[in-house]
Amino acid sequence: MNKFFKTSNTALRLFNRSVQLPAPTQRVRQLAGSIESTDESGRLLEGVVTSPANYVPLTPISFLERAADVFRDRTSVVFGSCVKYTWEETHSRCLKLASALVQLGISRGDVVAALAPNVPAMQELHFAVPMAEAVLCTLNTRLDSSMVAHLLKHSEAKIIFVDQQLLQVAQQALSLLSKDKIKPPILVLIPEYENSSPTNDIHEYENLLSSGSSNFTIRLPKSEFDPISINYTSGTVSSPKGVVYNHRGAYLNSISTFLCHGMGPMPSYLWTLPMFHCNGWCMIWGMAALGGTNVCLRNVSAKNIFESISLNKVTHMSAAPIILSMMANSSPNDRKPLPHKVEIMTGGSPPPPQILSKMEQLGFGVSHGYGLTETYSAATICFWKPEWDSLPLEERAALKSRQGVQHLCIEKVDVRDPETMEKVPADGKSIGEIVCRGNTVMSGYLKDAKATEEAFRGGWFHSGDLAVKHPDGYIEIKDRLKDIIISGGENISTLEVERVLYSHPAVVEAAVVARPDDQWGQTPCAFITLKEGFDEITEQEIINFCRDHLPRYMAPRTVLFEDLPKTSTGKVQKFILREKAKALGSLFSTEKISAASC
Amino acid sequence: MNKFFKTSNTALRLFNRSVQLPAPTQRVRQLAGSIESTDESGRLLEGVVTSPANYVPLTPISFLERAADVFRDRTSVVFGSCVKYTWEETHSRCLKLASALVQLGISRGDVVAALAPNVPAMQELHFAVPMAEAVLCTLNTRLDSSMVAHLLKHSEAKIIFVDQQLLQVAQQALSLLSKDKIKPPILVLIPEYENSSPTNDIHEYENLLSSGSSNFTIRLPKSEFDPISINYTSGTVSSPKGVVYNHRGAYLNSISTFLCHGMGPMPSYLWTLPMFHCNGWCMIWGMAALGGTNVCLRNVSAKNIFESISLNKVTHMSAAPIILSMMANSSPNDRKPLPHKVEIMTGGSPPPPQILSKMEQLGFGVSHGYGLTETYSAATICFWKPEWDSLPLEERAALKSRQGVQHLCIEKVDVRDPETMEKVPADGKSIGEIVCRGNTVMSGYLKDAKATEEAFRGGWFHSGDLAVKHPDGYIEIKDRLKDIIISGGENISTLEVERVLYSHPAVVEAAVVARPDDQWGQTPCAFITLKEGFDEITEQEIINFCRDHLPRYMAPRTVLFEDLPKTSTGKVQKFILREKAKALGSLFSTEKISAASC
Repeated sequence: MNKFFKTSNTALRLFNRSVQLPAPTQRVRQLAGSIESTDESGRLLEGVVTSPANYVPLTPISFLERAADVFRDRTSVVFGSCVKYTWEETHSRCLKLASALVQLGISRGDVVAALAPNVPAMQELHFAVPMAEAVLCTLNTRLDSSMVAHLLKHSEAKIIFVDQQLLQVAQQALSLLSKDKIKPPILVLIPEYENSSPTNDIHEYENLLSSGSSNFTIRLPKSEFDPISINYTSGTVSSPKGVVYNHRGAYLNSISTFLCHGMGPMPSYLWTLPMFHCNGWCMIWGMAALGGTNVCLRNVSAKNIFESISLNKVTHMSAAPIILSMMANSSPNDRKPLPHKVEIMTGGSPPPPQILSKMEQLGFGVSHGYGLTETYSAATICFWKPEWDSLPLEERAALKSRQGVQHLCIEKVDVRDPETMEKVPADGKSIGEIVCRGNTVMSGYLKDAKATEEAFRGGWFHSGDLAVKHPDGYIEIKDRLKDIIISGGENISTLEVERVLYSHPAVVEAAVVARPDDQWGQTPCAFITLKEGFDEITEQEIINFCRDHLPRYMAPRTVLFEDLPKTSTGKVQKFILREKAKALGSLFSTEKISAASC
Repeated sequence: MNKFFKTSNTALRLFNRSVQLPAPTQRVRQLAGSIESTDESGRLLEGVVTSPANYVPLTPISFLERAADVFRDRTSVVFGSCVKYTWEETHSRCLKLASALVQLGISRGDVVAALAPNVPAMQELHFAVPMAEAVLCTLNTRLDSSMVAHLLKHSEAKIIFVDQQLLQVAQQALSLLSKDKIKPPILVLIPEYENSSPTNDIHEYENLLSSGSSNFTIRLPKSEFDPISINYTSGTVSSPKGVVYNHRGAYLNSISTFLCHGMGPMPSYLWTLPMFHCNGWCMIWGMAALGGTNVCLRNVSAKNIFESISLNKVTHMSAAPIILSMMANSSPNDRKPLPHKVEIMTGGSPPPPQILSKMEQLGFGVSHGYGLTETYSAATICFWKPEWDSLPLEERAALKSRQGVQHLCIEKVDVRDPETMEKVPADGKSIGEIVCRGNTVMSGYLKDAKATEEAFRGGWFHSGDLAVKHPDGYIEIKDRLKDIIISGGENISTLEVERVLYSHPAVVEAAVVARPDDQWGQTPCAFITLKEGFDEITEQEIINFCRDHLPRYMAPRTVLFEDLPKTSTGKVQKFILREKAKALGSLFSTEKISAASC
C-alpha cells in the first residue's frame, strides 16, 4: 500500500490500463465541510485534496481580474487622443459589457461576433464575452458580406458588434440572412471613436455598456476546456472552418509567447497585427497578465507606426512581413527615432535579408515564428543564438528565415511522415509534415467532427505544411502538403520556385501548381501577373530565368500570364489554378505538347 | 439548443447547479478511432474534442523534454570546473537515473528523498524522480539526524540520496530507524564532485546512473494533479508538515516567477537559494523552460558569489536577505565587477535601506516577494513602479519592503478577517490574515487531512501571517500568527526551542521570542523562570544544553532569568517579551555584546 494512492480492486483494474488518460479525471466531493479527492480509478489521495483553495480553471479572465488590482492605475489601452483607460477602468467597463450581454439574453455557449479593426472595443469584447460564459467570434475585416453572412449562420451568432466603417458590409450580410429566413443577430454599432456623435440607440456600443452593471458577477468557465472563441480559417483550400479555442489553451498560449520573447511586466504594445487574427495571437488577453498597454491604431501606415512608437514609448509589436516591408521602405520623413530598441515578432513568410538589415539599422529587433490558427498562433519560434550575431547578413537572414523550434506550452512540434508518423531524418533535406500536439492545439472545428478527426488522426494535429528538420533541430517549411509537386520522384517546393519568380523584374505576382504529366507524374506550372510595360515577356524567358536560378527539374515547364484568383482576404486560391493546370492535360505526351503550349 | 452544449434533461439538472465545479470534469472516450468528448453533465461538444493531440497533463517534465531539443547544445548546469552538461546531456542523464530508480523498485507514488546542497545531482533528481512517477522529498541540509529520521519515516521514503558531506547525519538517521524496527531507505551516496574517487558501489550516484538506460520511457503523470514533490515545513508551531506539490502547480509556478520578473530565454542563474527550499522556488524545473544555465555553488561566500557571477556571466539569482547583507558588507577585495546588471529576487524579510542602496551601487537590481512553502514559494511580488525611481532612498526602501501584489498564476491573494473572511479596508492600518487561493497552492499536507482541512477552511488557504493592505493594493506584513523567528533565512519554531528548555531540570517556565539582530535578522531570545534551588545556573549552561538537543542555529543566543508576564487566563504575553527583546538591541554588533550578555 502506497501513501498516496489507496487502491480498491475495481480501481486497480482501471488503474492498470496502459493507456494514458487524456484528460484530468479527478472527481471531487465536498462532504459536510470536509473535502475529499479521488481520481477516476477511485484512489484516495491521503491528505491531498482538490478544493476551491487550490484549484481554479485556467482562464484569461483571471488575468484581467488581477490586472484590475495589481496594475489598477496603469494604462490598459490607448487610442489616439480619443481613448485612454486604466486597467481598473477596463475591468469595470468589461463587467458592464458582460452584464449588458446577459441582459440581451446571452447565456452559456452563445456566440457573440465582432467585425472591427483594432479599436478599444475589441479588447473589451475579448474579456466581456467570456465573462458572460459566451464565445467570441472575431471576423476578418476584409470579408465580403456573403462570407460574413455565411459565418454568422454557421456560428449561430446571437449578436454582432460592428465598427462604423464596416457597417455596410454587416448590414448587407444581415439582409442576406433575412432573405434566407434566418433570424439575424442583433447588431451593435461600435461608433468611430474619432468623431462619434451621441445617440439614444441602445444598440450603440457605449449606450449598451452603460446599461450594464459593474457589480456583475463574472461567470467563470465550468471547465477550463470550455470554448472561449472561434477563429475562422481563411479557407484557401475549402470553405472556412471554425477553429474553437478553449480557456486553458488561451491562458497557456498568452504566457508561452511572452516567455519565448522574454517579455516582462508592463510593456507598451503596438497593435498592427489584427486583433481578429487568432485573437491577436492571444496577446490581447495576455497584455492583462503583464499589465501592458495596448496601443491601438486604426490606419496602419509607416508614418502612423513611427509616430505611435515615439508617442507611446512602444516596446513591442507584432507585424506581418508586409508591414515590415512598409516600414523598411518608408520615406525618412515619415520616420521618427525610436525611444529604445523595439522588438517585433513576425510570422507568415520569413523576413527577406534586405528588409531585416534595414529594420535592424532602424533600431528594431525582429524575431520570426510559425503557427496556424489551429495552434492559437505561434507553434514555433526561431530562437536566435548569440553566436550567430557575428555572421554575415545573408547567413543571418537564412538562419532567421527558418521557422525554428517549438514554443514553450505546446507539447511537441515535429516533422514526420504524414502516413507512417515516423520522424524524418534531421538532415535539412528529408521532407515531412509539421505535426503538433499539446495544450495549445485547438479544441476542434466547430460542427465538423469529421474534419477534426482527420486533423487529429494518430493523436497529432496535422498542419498540412511540409518541412525539413535541420541537424540543429530547427524546422524549415518547404511547402503546403497540398501544393508540393512531385516530378520524376523529386519533391519540388512551390515556395522556392515562386521565390525565384518574384525576383524577376517583370513579375508582380506568381503562383506555381502541379500539372499532371504522363511521363513525370507532375511538372511545375506557373501562373504569372506581369508588371505594366512588360507585356512582351515570353514564357521561355521566364523558364530560362528559373533554370538559371534553380535546379533544372524545379523550373516551370509551363508558364501562363493571367490574373490570379484570390479569396476575400487576398490569399491566392491555388485549388482553382490546380484545376486549370489539370485541364491542360499532360505536357509530356507527344500529342498534347502543342495544345499545352497554346 | 446551443451548438456547444447539447443537454439532456438529466444533464440540465446537473448543469444548473449553482456551485462551480472545482475540478475539470471531462470524460473522454476513444471509440474505434474517433474521439468524442463530453463533460460531467453529459453535454456533447460538437466538433470539439479532448484528445492526445490537444491535451497533455501539465508537468515540468515537458520543460526538460523540450530543452533537450530546443536548447540541446546550451549549458544546462555548471559546477566549478568539475561539471558542465548541456541540456541534451542533462536529459540523457535524467532518463538514465529514472531508469535506474525503476530498476531499484521505485513505482508510482513512491517517495525518493534527497539530503544535499546545491550540487548538480539535485537538478537531475528534480526531473528523474518525477519521470519515474515518483515523488521527490528534498530535506533541509541543516536538520539533525533525529529530524531526518522522523521525516524519512513520515514520508516512507524508499531511497535517500545523500551528499558526501552529510553522510554522517544520514547514516545516524538510518540507524535510528533501524532501532525503531523501521526498514530504512536505500542510501545512495552523491560523491563530492570536487574530489571523488571511483568506487564500484552500485549505490554510488554515478554508478547508479550508469546502470540506467537513456532509452527509458518517461512515465508521465496520469493526471496533472498527481504529486511531484514533498517539502516539509520547518515546523514552527507543530511537528513539520509535508507539503505536497502537484505537477500542475509546479509547472505554473515556474512560469509565474519568470513572467513576474521579466525573465526571458537562456538566463544564467546562480544558485545561492537552497534547491531544497520549495524546490528552489520551482526554478530548478523552470530553468529547463527557459533553457537557462544552473550555476551551482557549494560554499556560499561573497567572494565565491562575485567570482561565479563574473565567470558565468550570471544574469539572475535568488538570495535570502542574509546573502544580500553578506554581499553588501563584503570586502572590496572579494568583489569583482559585474558583467551586466544582475537581478536578485529576495524574500523572507525585506531588504534594509542600507543594504538595498549598497547592492544598487554594486550594480544589482533587487526585487522583493513573499510566499510560503504552501504556495510553491512566492505568492506576491513587490512590483516596482517606474515613478518610484526618483524617490529618496528611505522612501524607496519603505516601498520595496512591502510584500506587494499577487503573483500571476495564483488566483487571488488577499488580506481578510480570518474568521468572517471579510476583506479588511485597504487603509494600511486594518490588520487581517493573508489568504490565498489558486493553482499554485499546495495539494495538501501529507497524511494530515485535518491540518489540510483547517488550512483550506472556507475555500482559502490561510497563511497565518498578519498584514495590512495599503490604499494602492500593496500588502505589508505586520506580524505572524505563529511567533516564528527567522534567523539567517531559517525559520525557527519557538515552540520547539521551548520544548527543549522545558526538558532542562532547572526550568519552570520558558518562552522564546525573536531578538532583532543586525547580522542574522533575528536570533532566539529565551525568558526563563528557574526552579528554587537552581539559582546558580548560568546563561551559558542553558545555551549549551539547547545546542546539545537542537540544531545550533535554533539554540537561544540570549537567556534572561525572570518571571513571565501572563494574561489572566495564564497565557504568556509574548508581545511584552518581544518588546523587551527588542529593547536589548542587536546581539551581534560589537558594542552591544557585553550588554546583551549581562
